[in-house]
Parts: sequence; structure tokens; C-alpha cells
Amino acid sequence: MSRVYNFSAGPAVLPEEVLKEVAEEMMDYRGCGMSVMEMSHRSKMFDDIIQETEKDLRDLMHIPDNYKVLFLQGGASQQFAMIPMNLMKNRVADYIVTGQWAKKAWQEAQKYGKANKIASSEDKTFSYIPDCSDLPISEDADYVYICENNTIYGTKYKELPNTKGKLLVSDVSSCFLSEPIDVTKYGIVYGGVQKNIGPAGMVIAIIREDLITEDVLPGTPTMLTYKTHADAGSMYNTPNCFCIYVCGKVFKWLKKMGGLEAMKERNEKKAAILYDFLDQSEMFRGTVEKKDRSLMNVPFVTGNKELDAKFVKESQAAGFENLKGHRTVGGMRASIYNAMPIEGVEALVAFMKKFEEENK
Amino acid sequence: MSRVYNFSAGPAVLPEEVLKEVAEEMMDYRGCGMSVMEMSHRSKMFDDIIQETEKDLRDLMHIPDNYKVLFLQGGASQQFAMIPMNLMKNRVADYIVTGQWAKKAWQEAQKYGKANKIASSEDKTFSYIPDCSDLPISEDADYVYICENNTIYGTKYKELPNTKGKLLVSDVSSCFLSEPIDVTKYGIVYGGVQKNIGPAGMVIAIIREDLITEDVLPGTPTMLTYKTHADAGSMYNTPNCFCIYVCGKVFKWLKKMGGLEAMKERNEKKAAILYDFLDQSEMFRGTVEKKDRSLMNVPFVTGNKELDAKFVKESQAAGFENLKGHRTVGGMRASIYNAMPIEGVEALVAFMKKFEEENK
Repeated sequence: MSRVYNFSAGPAVLPEEVLKEVAEEMMDYRGCGMSVMEMSHRSKMFDDIIQETEKDLRDLMHIPDNYKVLFLQGGASQQFAMIPMNLMKNRVADYIVTGQWAKKAWQEAQKYGKANKIASSEDKTFSYIPDCSDLPISEDADYVYICENNTIYGTKYKELPNTKGKLLVSDVSSCFLSEPIDVTKYGIVYGGVQKNIGPAGMVIAIIREDLITEDVLPGTPTMLTYKTHADAGSMYNTPNCFCIYVCGKVFKWLKKMGGLEAMKERNEKKAAILYDFLDQSEMFRGTVEKKDRSLMNVPFVTGNKELDAKFVKESQAAGFENLKGHRTVGGMRASIYNAMPIEGVEALVAFMKKFEEENK
Repeated sequence: MSRVYNFSAGPAVLPEEVLKEVAEEMMDYRGCGMSVMEMSHRSKMFDDIIQETEKDLRDLMHIPDNYKVLFLQGGASQQFAMIPMNLMKNRVADYIVTGQWAKKAWQEAQKYGKANKIASSEDKTFSYIPDCSDLPISEDADYVYICENNTIYGTKYKELPNTKGKLLVSDVSSCFLSEPIDVTKYGIVYGGVQKNIGPAGMVIAIIREDLITEDVLPGTPTMLTYKTHADAGSMYNTPNCFCIYVCGKVFKWLKKMGGLEAMKERNEKKAAILYDFLDQSEMFRGTVEKKDRSLMNVPFVTGNKELDAKFVKESQAAGFENLKGHRTVGGMRASIYNAMPIEGVEALVAFMKKFEEENK
């Protein structure tokens, strides 16, 4: 077995010890004689798994009691509809468009009401986060929507927008559990798990209880009603059991690593290694405004497409996977999620230095 | 490692050799240095997996070229909304209600149009399949809906209903790949994979191409529009990659076992062992009409609740898991899906004989 350094933007690298445990428990989960994949979701064994998974997440994020934790299918893309269908009582919402995913969410919301784009950074290929201290928040806005870390472009909100008292809804898919957050600042904070937490196929949505009601837009499917899932402890129908199980193991790993405070420190250290190099390199440079740099997704270019392609090819041959940038941006991108070890970033920078010297 | 005989109705037993392979490939899939869970869904490696999975399913089921195969999230419960949202052009559909899942589908469809219950077996606790040779099919029905195998009650359509030329939509979750079917008889044939195929968290929908259009009901979310997924080869957003991978392995296993013709023979043999015993036992009896018996789910009772409870308890202690019947039916239920070996059914019948003798 030989593992590579995997810089994929998602699905992405998982902690090696988690994978090892999953493999060991595959034929026989803790003496029960079956795999977690084979367990009835109504069994005591699986109930223990989902309960403990939720509890560990609540501990890690300090989730207050008046917030529900839901394990949902369909990805963030399904939330783009689910959010307006459940929250748009006045049929008005404000969207801050800082990348492709925020834009898709904004476009989807237009099906259900007046979705206002109150700020955007599309003028400069989403390479920055707009000033959100005094935006024209709509008087009757049901919520203000953001995508907190922009996977493709490599930006992140360092401060939450001033919503002027309106509810904040945030997609944190690519910065989920990368640092502590104050859950009470959000109405809904949610993310797909396939970047920083587990295998693809699940969203975790953390929702303030009073927002979970039967008063949804007409025609909202039962499965797209938060209340359906909240009332059933995320088991209205069979959930993605295996994903819940793997996420649970990642939560244990995060606790062992020291929790989100420690992860933040580690992530800052990792990102600094890469950004410091980019800032002094004569060949490579980062593509986003320094103040808005993501700790998780680091896009960079040489400024020469052929050289970019050469770098991607040679880095792969050297054991660095998935460094090619998103097709809409080009260049390179290193996603350095929680599970990427510091050694992976150090090795990448060493490789970049060598490449720079060899290709001056 | 000690494996039990797992009679769970779903999630359910998987082939041991599939689990073994999954465990072996967990840290390093075929020398690529990562787990399938860690792979970008846009990578060549994963593309090979999803393509081969679809191809093997097409081979197994002889799916014609004018049918699309979609890998979707949200379970059958989400299809209950997705089907009317995509197909109810006239806002009329006919439902045959033969169990809890057909009933839920019928109820959900009422949100979107006139959903007629044209037949039901609820009068006798869903213990039979109604005569469907000459039902009052609505003249303007967009489709006729059935649940082909009723997991909870243990019934199965031995013949498809006469839809009088209308489109047939069928939920085959609990008989998926248990025997050959003629796909051309369906407009949509779909099922959750967590019973007969793989881990929970995915539905496979096989849809006639001409039914996949942009002409959906107003307010249909992008993610609930079949065309979204069909146009993107089930990768509009990140799919349940790990589930696709495991299902792919089960398809290889089915091919190796001789395909669906061989599975049918094997399943009939397995079911006969259990039904033959039930028919001659003086303690146990099956709960459904013989002509409508499912090959997959076999509910049975002693007629005495205390004895039922004793049986469930003692069978579990003897290594037979999940024999307790569904809470709405009581008694016992043995789900004997494709991956349940004949030896498991033989061992169960031997145990039942012993129990009968000991408790006369």
C-alpha cells in the first residue's frame, strides 16, 4: 500500500486512521457479525452510531440545544431549493454572490420568490469577498445567503456579513469543521460532507429550531421539508448510514486532534507554508486578494498555461494528486483540508521550489 | 471474525466477497494511492467506476438504449415527489395501493394533481395483490403507479397490471435484480439500492428517454428534475460515489453468479425451502395469499404473540439477526435477498423445526 498526497477539492483526503478502522470493521462491526452497510437503520446498533455521531458534532461545534442537526441527502445543490422552500415566507431573500455555488443557490431561489443579488465579486472572477459591512439588505428579506468558503476560487469570509438583523444562511461545505464558528450567528449553517468530513452523499444542516415549521411553500416535497427530517431524527427514510458512520469516526479523530481550536491552528500553519512560498516565489502566485484567502483551497498560477500544464503533469508523477485547477479558473489548486497532513504541504512546497529552479 | 445470518429487510446482507474486496481496497484503490471515498468524482478513475457500473447493470437487466440509468439520492421517498413533478403533465395519475410505500407515494402525488387510488388491498392488511387485469384506468392518466414487491407485507405482483396503454411506473426496491424483468414494459422502473444491491443512500432509476424533458411542474427543484441528472450522467453534483462503487461490485458478483436468470432460480429455491416448511408446520404460518408471495420478504407468525417474541429472542441468540416483523404487522419476517446464501435459509428452517418441537 502506497498512499499519495491527495489535494482534491472534494471528495477529498480522509484521515488514514479512519480509513483503517473502516476497513477493519468491514466484515464484522464490533462483534455484531455484519458490516455497518448491512445494518437495519432501525437497529439499536445503528441508532447508537447516529446518536454518538450527532453528539460528537455537537461537542465539536458547541451547537446550542435550540439547533437541530440534520443528516440529509442530495448535496448542497438540493439545499439551494430546500432553503427557499422552507424559509421564504415573504418570498424575498438576499444573496451575496462570491462564486459559482452562491450563484447557483441564487439562481435556484429565483424559482420561489424574489432573490436579490445584493453584492457580487463576479467582476473580478470571484477573486475577493465584497465589503459586507453595510449592504442594501431588503426590508422584508426572509434571509441573507452566503457561501462562506469558495472552493473554486479560494476565498473565504473572514467576517460574517452585517445582515442588519436578518437571518443568515451559510453554505460552509469547504470550510466545515476547519475552525470554530459561533453557531448562534446563523439561522442555518450547512455543508456537504465530502470535502472536510467524509464520503460524498450527505449534507449536514444545523438549523435553529424555530425555523423548522410546517409552513413551507405549496408543493414542497415531504423530503424537502426540514420538519420531516427533524421530527424523525434524520430517519424519516433510510439515511446514508455508511456516510454517517464514517463521519462519526472523523469527529472522533477531530476530538483526538484537539477539537476545532487545534484544527484552526494546524490549518493556519499549513496554509501559511503554502502562501508564504507563493508570496516569495518568482514563478508561482496566488490568484485571490490576500485578505480573503481561504485556509482550505489555495489556487495558484505561473501565468503561463504551458508551464501550468507541465507542473500538473510532473507533480502527479511525483505523487501529488489533483493539483489541476478548476476548469473555470485554470492553473493549479491545492485543497488542504483537515485531513491533509502538514508533511503533505511541506512536500508540495519543496516540489514547487525544485520545479521553479528547474524551469527558470 | 464471525458473520451472522442477517435477515434484515434493508439495509441488508451483502455478498461477503464484495465486502472483502471493499475492505482490501480501502486504503489504496488499485494502486492509485487513495480510497474510492477520497477520489474526485471528476477523476478518470471514478469515471471508469461509474461507467462500468452502469454498463454492468445494463448487461444484467438488458436495458435498451432508449432508457437512461440514473443514480440519484434521497431514496424512494424522494421519488414519490419526483415522479409526479416530472410526469404529471395532465395532473392525473392512477395508484394501486398494495402497502405502506405505495400508499405514501399516492399521498405525496396528491400534492401535485389528481392521484386516484384505483385499487387497494388495505382491506386485508395488504396481504394480497388485487386483480389488476381490468382496472378503471383514468382516461387522462399520466401514468399508473405500483410498488412491485411489498417489503413489509411480503407480497409481489406476479403479473404487471393491465395499464390499458398508459405508462407504468414501478418501485422495485425490494425485488431489484432478484429476477429478470422486461424493462420495455415500464416508463420508469426504480428502486432504492439498500435492499438487494448495496449500502443505503441511493436510488437507481431507469427511465425511458422520451419521459425526460424540461417540461416539469412549476417549482420543481433543479435536483428533482430527471433531465438535470440525465444530461450530466448522474454527476450534476457529487453523487454517492462510494455507493456506486459498492453497487458496481455487486453487479460483477451477480454476473459471476450467472446473471438474473440464475438469481431467479436460486431465489425460487431459497423461498421454496422456507414456504414449504411454513405450509407443513403446525406452529408457523405465512401471512399472505400464496399466489402473491414474495421471493424476497417472507412474513410469518405463530399466532401467539408471546411465542413470536420468544422465537425472535432465541433465533437472535442462535445467530439469526433481524427476524422481528415490521412494527405494523408483528410476528416475524425473513428477508432473503440475493446475497442471503441458501445455507442461511436452510439453517433458519432447521432452527424453526427445532423451535417447533421444543415448544409444542
